[in-house]
Amino acid sequence: MKTENTISTSEAQIREFINNRVSAIRKKDLNAVLSEYAPDVVIYSLAPPLQTEGADSKALERWFSSYRGAIECEIRDLTIFAGEDIAFCHFLYRITGTMMTGQQEDMWVRGTLGFQKKDGEWLIVHQHDSEPFDMHTFNALLDLKP
Amino acid sequence: MKTENTISTSEAQIREFINNRVSAIRKKDLNAVLSEYAPDVVIYSLAPPLQTEGADSKALERWFSSYRGAIECEIRDLTIFAGEDIAFCHFLYRITGTMMTGQQEDMWVRGTLGFQKKDGEWLIVHQHDSEPFDMHTFNALLDLKP
Repeated sequence: MKTENTISTSEAQIREFINNRVSAIRKKDLNAVLSEYAPDVVIYSLAPPLQTEGADSKALERWFSSYRGAIECEIRDLTIFAGEDIAFCHFLYRITGTMMTGQQEDMWVRGTLGFQKKDGEWLIVHQHDSEPFDMHTFNALLDLKP
Repeated sequence: MKTENTISTSEAQIREFINNRVSAIRKKDLNAVLSEYAPDVVIYSLAPPLQTEGADSKALERWFSSYRGAIECEIRDLTIFAGEDIAFCHFLYRITGTMMTGQQEDMWVRGTLGFQKKDGEWLIVHQHDSEPFDMHTFNALLDLKP
């Protein structure tokens, strides 16, 4: 039965989920990040294609190994909508670090995550990351700041 | 109290919401589209900035009036996760039409919508639309097809 307590517990669980996710990304912990996904998660990523089904461990590994050391990940404006076993949240996140090429990366990204609770455990069933683009040049705008 | 019936009703309501939304966009019905949003909706749009709070009626009006006639809107791969009063869905949508400039528009976009039921009525509390971009040229990829 739904109670106000269940809802506030769900919200706290999603907040903890996001904190753990940020830690796992900083540590480039591939298994920890992969374990957050439902097998049939639908991901709209920064890179093509339009959508992928299932977490792409190879792509994640490539992303992690494109950075020399740690990936810094900072989250702001996290907003959570949580029910008993369905939840979603949105936030802006900043990725900084030194690429293997020596280039300094520093970009803000918009993130949305959708969750479903299965067998008592929250899993990501949908992920949507993006940058807006200039309507005249069609360039993705990677240097916007919130 | 949550029942399986409540959940399947929620899903049916979100499906109908999306159908009505597509109709309203096709008809360029500004008021119908605006009435779907919660006052504090957070929107991640194709165009900058990173985020806006509240539906931007001027931007919507400009979008509608940039097309000569009707805007064709087609949705595919709609997937809905609905609880008692929290829901979200994701889908790909195709926008086609003739711009005021004479240019033929035809693009697929990734869409995510987050909903909250308030006083018995579902409202959009989060909208995320995007195109992926090329990781080398940083060009938004507007010609991808699902």
